[in-house]
Amino acid sequence: MAAVALVQGASRGLGLEFCRNILINKAPGALIATCRNPDNAAELMSLVAQHPGKVTVLKLDVNREDDIQRAAEHVKKEFGKVDLIINSSAMLHPSGKGETSLKDVSAQGIISTLTTNTVGPLVMAKYFAPLLQKGSGAFGQQPPEKAKQHSGIIVNITAKVGSIGDNGLGGWYSYRMSKAALNMATRNLSIELGRSRPRVVCVSMHPGTVNTDLSRPYHKNVPKDKLFSTSHSVHCLMSIIDSLNIDKTGKAYNWNGSELPW
Amino acid sequence: MAAVALVQGASRGLGLEFCRNILINKAPGALIATCRNPDNAAELMSLVAQHPGKVTVLKLDVNREDDIQRAAEHVKKEFGKVDLIINSSAMLHPSGKGETSLKDVSAQGIISTLTTNTVGPLVMAKYFAPLLQKGSGAFGQQPPEKAKQHSGIIVNITAKVGSIGDNGLGGWYSYRMSKAALNMATRNLSIELGRSRPRVVCVSMHPGTVNTDLSRPYHKNVPKDKLFSTSHSVHCLMSIIDSLNIDKTGKAYNWNGSELPW
Ligand SMILES: NC(=O)c1ccc[n+]([C@@H]2O[C@H](COP(=O)([O-])OP(=O)(O)OC[C@H]3O[C@@H](n4cnc5c(N)ncnc54)[C@H](OP(=O)(O)O)[C@@H]3O)[C@@H](O)[C@H]2O)c1
Ligand SMILES: NC(=O)c1ccc[n+]([C@@H]2O[C@H](COP(=O)([O-])OP(=O)(O)OC[C@H]3O[C@@H](n4cnc5c(N)ncnc54)[C@H](OP(=O)(O)O)[C@@H]3O)[C@@H](O)[C@H]2O)c1
Repeated sequence: MAAVALVQGASRGLGLEFCRNILINKAPGALIATCRNPDNAAELMSLVAQHPGKVTVLKLDVNREDDIQRAAEHVKKEFGKVDLIINSSAMLHPSGKGETSLKDVSAQGIISTLTTNTVGPLVMAKYFAPLLQKGSGAFGQQPPEKAKQHSGIIVNITAKVGSIGDNGLGGWYSYRMSKAALNMATRNLSIELGRSRPRVVCVSMHPGTVNTDLSRPYHKNVPKDKLFSTSHSVHCLMSIIDSLNIDKTGKAYNWNGSELPW
Repeated sequence: MAAVALVQGASRGLGLEFCRNILINKAPGALIATCRNPDNAAELMSLVAQHPGKVTVLKLDVNREDDIQRAAEHVKKEFGKVDLIINSSAMLHPSGKGETSLKDVSAQGIISTLTTNTVGPLVMAKYFAPLLQKGSGAFGQQPPEKAKQHSGIIVNITAKVGSIGDNGLGGWYSYRMSKAALNMATRNLSIELGRSRPRVVCVSMHPGTVNTDLSRPYHKNVPKDKLFSTSHSVHCLMSIIDSLNIDKTGKAYNWNGSELPW
């Protein structure tokens, strides 16, 4: 059966661009694009119109376990499998800006950020793992040995600032903590879903610093050649996805394919 | 002024033992022991009775930011400073057992675990940092150079299973993620509070596998000589604390003093 890909957090930014890239370059059997407010996702809707019959848009707030469960049931009924899931949704902090120092830290701010950025992607994995295990391995690279082939791939979009070992600057407490915990989720998923067949490859990926709403408050501090367009970033990340196999599971990759420290 | 230490999560297990050890071996000017239900903390109360005038017990649920703020105000008024804070409270999961596999994962379970194990210790640091900056450096080792001396120490009790790079077994999603995120908090705190004087040393520490209620469901799987008593574990951790200085900040230490990977 033709490839089925799902992008979670598809209304804007990198998620929207993943949809565009997959539709153009992968000619999938189906693309499932999830977002919390389809009615407000005008760009996604015009992409849908450009690719008639290819895209299913599902309403999914990643903070709502029942939304996730319902989406998985729908995908199971309609497609019976998924080959690739990209968890793209996230926020820096409910205020839109990372904490500069401890005085900006609040329990409520950290909990919201962790819920969206960390808990959401893991709960996605919970409900979609059975569908990924029914995948036909349409993404990534399949080695000749049957025992090492994978059925599906989970990509959690992380951030370099979520690497504890790489943290030299501090600040952004909630966001950094959420991505460190997400990397642990990726690692745990790679173990549980890589242990027995059918195998699912699970990785974290850092997209670079990308021109989106999320990074907008900081654009003025980024040298122009370091601020990627979404199309450049997604092009780089899709090349990494193309090269994934079970030997590459359980790691965090930078946009250029190098491994990030934990 | 004589040493002031605060143990958060002092009703049972390692927190209670830290109180006992500090009272006996450090003869502090004051020990502040916080727990969410002082009325149920019989062992702590008998320790208080054995050391008249030394121990202040404060009611503090680490999930309640207002409790933490109120405790900090009380300590400020009564003592004006803190030299050492140990964040010991945590849980494996609201069910008392770590998730064996994805099917046990729930959004609510992860969020509760993250709130207690990760958000709590960071919010403690927010409200107590100013008091640690007023500390007199009574714990750890002070180098001769004034510029490198520290005023206070924060110890976040982590767990080896919170090391992403060391994770070979998987499972225990909520607990592992909470401790990975706590390690990021430690690292961030070490940067913010180590940058300018007065400096506060911030570390994570793994106590070994210790005979407490938290680990009880798993005791039967632990070889007898690998299951530490709380007094052995706390003895080891207090030796590490005795050796801390600003050059050792921002790291995670195993009970034997070796560094843990992130
Ligand atoms: N941009 C960068 O420089 C950069 C750098 C490192 C990592 N990243 C990571 O890249 C990923 C994509 O970020 P971006 O730059 O594309 O950000 P963005 O343009 O701000 O887009 C964020 C997306 O997340 C969605 N979202 C937020 N909360 C949600 C929820 N509760 N349920 C469902 N969707 C939700 C938003 O949907 P709505 O439209 O409904 O708000 C939006 O589609 C994130 O994981 C981010 O951490 C970005
Ligand atoms: N035991 C081990 O083998 C082991 C191994 C690695 C790491 N650790 C870590 O060591 C630390 C101490 O654990 P332990 O073994 O001593 O566990 P424990 O005996 O189960 O004690 C847990 C403590 O946390 C407190 N607590 C829980 N939720 C709280 C809240 N919301 N507010 C305030 N206090 C709360 C409990 O208070 P109540 O009495 O009110 O419930 C109790 O004092 C934890 O950080 C744990 O993760 C333990």
